[in-house]
Formats: sequence, structure tokens, C-alpha cells
Amino acid sequence: MTEQITIAIDAMGGDHGLKVTMVGAARALARNDNVRFLLVGDRAKLQPLLDADAKLKAASKIVHAENQVSMDAKPSRALRSGRHNSSMWKTIEAVKEGAADIAVSAGNTGALMAMSKVILKTMPGIERPAIAAIWPTLRGRSILLDVGATIGADARQLVDFAVLGEAMARSLFDIKRPTVGLLNVGVEEIKGNDHVRKAGAILRETELPIEYHGFVEGDDIAKGTVDVIATEGFSGNIALKSAEGTAKQLGQYVRAAMEKNLFCKLGYMLACSGLKELRDRMDPRTKNGGVFLGLNGIVVKSHGGADEIGFEHAISLGIDMARTGMISRIARDIDRAHRQRDKTRNAVTATSDQ
Amino acid sequence: MTEQITIAIDAMGGDHGLKVTMVGAARALARNDNVRFLLVGDRAKLQPLLDADAKLKAASKIVHAENQVSMDAKPSRALRSGRHNSSMWKTIEAVKEGAADIAVSAGNTGALMAMSKVILKTMPGIERPAIAAIWPTLRGRSILLDVGATIGADARQLVDFAVLGEAMARSLFDIKRPTVGLLNVGVEEIKGNDHVRKAGAILRETELPIEYHGFVEGDDIAKGTVDVIATEGFSGNIALKSAEGTAKQLGQYVRAAMEKNLFCKLGYMLACSGLKELRDRMDPRTKNGGVFLGLNGIVVKSHGGADEIGFEHAISLGIDMARTGMISRIARDIDRAHRQRDKTRNAVTATSDQ
Repeated sequence: MTEQITIAIDAMGGDHGLKVTMVGAARALARNDNVRFLLVGDRAKLQPLLDADAKLKAASKIVHAENQVSMDAKPSRALRSGRHNSSMWKTIEAVKEGAADIAVSAGNTGALMAMSKVILKTMPGIERPAIAAIWPTLRGRSILLDVGATIGADARQLVDFAVLGEAMARSLFDIKRPTVGLLNVGVEEIKGNDHVRKAGAILRETELPIEYHGFVEGDDIAKGTVDVIATEGFSGNIALKSAEGTAKQLGQYVRAAMEKNLFCKLGYMLACSGLKELRDRMDPRTKNGGVFLGLNGIVVKSHGGADEIGFEHAISLGIDMARTGMISRIARDIDRAHRQRDKTRNAVTATSDQ
Repeated sequence: MTEQITIAIDAMGGDHGLKVTMVGAARALARNDNVRFLLVGDRAKLQPLLDADAKLKAASKIVHAENQVSMDAKPSRALRSGRHNSSMWKTIEAVKEGAADIAVSAGNTGALMAMSKVILKTMPGIERPAIAAIWPTLRGRSILLDVGATIGADARQLVDFAVLGEAMARSLFDIKRPTVGLLNVGVEEIKGNDHVRKAGAILRETELPIEYHGFVEGDDIAKGTVDVIATEGFSGNIALKSAEGTAKQLGQYVRAAMEKNLFCKLGYMLACSGLKELRDRMDPRTKNGGVFLGLNGIVVKSHGGADEIGFEHAISLGIDMARTGMISRIARDIDRAHRQRDKTRNAVTATSDQ
């Protein structure tokens, strides 16, 4: 028997609120018998929806929250006004209190990160959290982090991201020695800015328990050259969104090509199995879910505009991470990496003191 | 009658050297009667190839250069050893001396930029040059700069890139008021790092002759939200290569979908017109060519691994820019923008002094 997993869901969050979160939860439940939900939101609105779905009702508890954080609220404002009584706050709090294994929200990203930091706090030794995205590649899947939490990460923070991402890859993809690369504008050691060069030197020279590959370039992400790509939040966000934009653009071209004339439509119908697969592969909903790493607890951020299928995928990602015991693994890895780094540093200092 | 245009070609440059550059030049010539070439390289190797192509021979002059810059030479080393007698150096020099309108090379990017800076020098008031890439979008084409020349551009340099890119868009795309955006991780004024926020403030507050749109995100590039996207070289390079990688990945998926089974192949044959168009649209060779901007003369950088079709496109890009008189336009625009900026600054200083 598999262990039961509890997911706290910010039921009011996202552009579509309950309409999407409740259906997404029901879909995720249909695929995972051993999941339980804490549905956080306005009980008056939640209860009737839950009463209409016996299976979901049996697997869920409602946690009442009066308010919700608006999608365009500034993080600082959301923190002041949404503290304690918003669905977002109470969703994260459920993880802090051990009532849930993982929190999932489609709400305002800035507010979600700000509240997550206040409630869960960064892990010992981690200065700043990261948002990790799972990227479908030609080889399978890779993890890119940070995609926007820490604008301007320094060398030490980049190394932390490498360690966090490696632990996530090991758990989620079930591989023993995930390879890790630093995103840069070239693969030579002299390339890039000071932070990335220095982070590269630390990863090369410190005996961290990490399979460090070296620098990788933007096109290495889609190639799947490494399992984990660590980068600063500005460039990571740009990389992710540029690729998303290109995927949408090409998806539109494919559809246009198919609908060009009668022959194309006929060809499309005949070729349906190959093209259906292509369409599924390009479906951004199946890639939904950014993971907050580096905090004492995991929060999954769904796209605000996600539909029920997208939200289901964000929940499933949370379930996968809870199932593999990722959180405790990450804490252990970070601790080990920091001790190793400090040991190497002390050894270097001792040598240079002689 | 259209004016004659002369393109200096580093005939020895790139991964494939003469094999690609000569065929690329012949192809470009077939589409542009009024172009003339300075083919820079080893005369002993160039002459027999030229003797075999009467049309190309009639349109070309050989400029002898003994050496060539290796593809993996460090820029500083290339500058020392390749000075004066390399095909790359002499190609750029032809622009400086007025013998050619534009230089095209598929050689080592770092060396090409280093030599271009030494020979052509930056335009008055421009601190650092940029490399501009032309990006096919859902709306047409946009210009992204810088894609890797200046790692860590500050606010002032970002504003220069906006002006340079705007002038390029006006010439090349023949539009009166190209829109300009700054690449960022969000569209709100508070988003991003100090440099991009400050550059945004300058572009908003200074009365530059520019249609400033505001911040744009990574996915706005493919959407074609603005005609010109200005960014610092690290993030621009990452954006470009991430999108290229995604385009290649999806191209591979499309091919795989087509070849999945007999029905798919048949469908592919029937749908050929739509899919052929799709393939052409996704062909990276037709997007080949990065433009060095901000120097007293234009250098077009072709991908080192480009084939003859890719190289032909880089030459055609050079021809288009020479035809529209882009270089003199840019010089005028930059001068005007700087004077306007200084005027606004003085006015602001005068006001705050009161």
C-alpha cells in the first residue's frame, strides 16, 4: 500500500478560481487514489460544489478562508492585507503545520512567493529561494531554475540552485547522478559574467556530490544536454518565456499548415495519429507547474490562466514530489553540500596559510 | 537603376570556408544583379574557383590575405596574430576604407567583434556595440539586440541599443515608427533589475524620437508585440538560443509525427503544400545573420556552421541594409537621440537646481 499524500489547494486562486481548481482536483483524484485534499477557500462557495461530487467530497476537507489575494496585488500589499485570512496564506500554512505535504496555488506569483518565504522560511544555509520549471527536452525532461524568484543571483546562490535542482531531479526523475550545467553564453570557462564564472569555479573545484557538466548554452536546454540547468532568475525567466513563445508560434504554424487547403485537411485526417501525438507533446498544459525550492516545504505554482487540465498537472507534479520524499532529500543534500563546501574552503585556507 | 552595392566577404571564414562562402556569394548574386563582391582570402585557392564561375568572376575582385583566424582562437590572440594579414581583418578593413559597403564573415564571433571594434571603432557617443538578430514572429519580423556582444550592459547602453535597433528596424523593415520594448521578467515598472528599470525610466521620461512601448516579456518576442526588443547581451543570447533550441526540437517532433506510420506518410504527401511552407518557415538558414551595430560600419556575422543557403541569407541581409542606407541613418539617429537626452538631462538638472 502506498502512503497517503495530502495536498493543500488554494481553491480561490488563479484567473478562473473554483471553476478550475475544483475540476482540476477531481481529475487529479481520478488518477491518484491515495491523495487527499485540503481545499482552502470560502466554505459557502466550496461546500455546494463539493456536495455535488461524492468522490471528491470523500477525499477532501474544507479549510475556510474569508479572503483571497487578487491577481494583480503587489506582494507587499498582499502580505499586509492577506495575512492570516486569505486562501493563499492558509494553503501555505497547512504545509508549515504539517497538515499537508505540499501546497498548490494558481494565484499571484509574487504574493505566493512572498507569503511562502514568510511562512515557510528558507532552509538553513539557503539565502534565497528559486522557482524550478520542468522542461520537456529531446532526451526527456530537464529542470531549469531559477525562472524568476531571485533577480540577480550571485555565485553562491547559483551553486545553491545547482544543489537544489539536482536533488529535485534525483527525486522526481528517479536518476542516481543527474548532470548539472550552468546556463551561459558560451561553454568556455572565460565566458559570461563574474557570477556565473565564479559559480562554475566553485562547482568545478569544490568536491560537491554533484555531476557538474560545465557551462551550457540556451539551445542545450531543449537538447536535454544536462538534467538540471541552473541560472539567475532574470535569464531563466527570459529563457523559459522565449521558448514558450516560440512553441506557441510554431504550434500556430502547424495548425495553419494543416488547414491550408482541402488536401492538407485530408492529409491531417489521415495523419491523425502522428499529429495527435505532436499536438499532445506541444500542449503547454501538460508542462504546467513551477516549484518553489529552497524553503522548508514545497509550494507548486500553477499558471494563473491554467484550465482544469493544466491545474490537474500542477497537482500531479505536487503528488509526484511528495511521493518521492523530495523535501527531506533536498534538506539533507543542501546540508551535505554546504558542509562539503565549507570543508574545501577551510582546506584551501589552511593550505594557503602555510 | 539601383545603385551598385559592394559586399566584402571573408571567404576563408566559417566551419566550411570557401566551399560555403563562394557558393553562397554566387547564389546571392543570382538574386541581386547590382551587387559586387570583394572576396578576401588566399588568392591561390580563390582564383581557380572564381575561374570556374564566369558570372561570379565578373562581379568579384579578390583581395589577397595570407592567413585566416581559426574558429577557436581567443579574441585577444586573434587580434595579435591575425592583425593586418588575415582574411577577417582585411574584410573589415575594406569597409573602413570605403572599398565595401558592408562586411560579411562566418568566422569566429569573438575575434570578428574584437577586430571590428579596433578597425571601425564605436560611433560617437556609443560606448559598446551590440549584435542584432532578426527574429521571425507571428506578426512578421522583429529585431532583438544585444544577443551577446556586451555582457552586463548598463541603463545608458540599453537605451543606446534601443536607438540602434529602432534605426535598423526603420531602414530594414521600412516602417516609420517602429515600436521598441525592453526585455524584462514582467511588464510592471517595478519589475527586473536596476539597469532595466533605469533604462525604462530614461526611455519614458526623455523625449527621444522613439515609440517606446515599455517592458516586454520573453514570450512577447515570438508574438511580435514590438518591432525592436532591447536587452543586455547575456539575456539576449539566452533568449535567442533557447528559442532556437525549441524550434529545432519542435521541428524534429513534426518530422517524427510525419514518419510515424504509413497513414502519416500518405497524409504528409497529401498535405505537402502546407507542410512544405511550414518547413520553410522553420528553416533556421533563412534567419541566418547577426548584425554588429554601433560601429562606424556594418559587419554581418553568419553562423559558423551555416551552409551555402544560410550564407546566402547573411549576404542578402547585408545587401538589404546597404540598399536602405542604414548606416548613415543610424549615425544621424544616435546623434539626435544623444542630443535630446542631454537636453532633457540639462533641463531636469536646471529644474532641480532651483
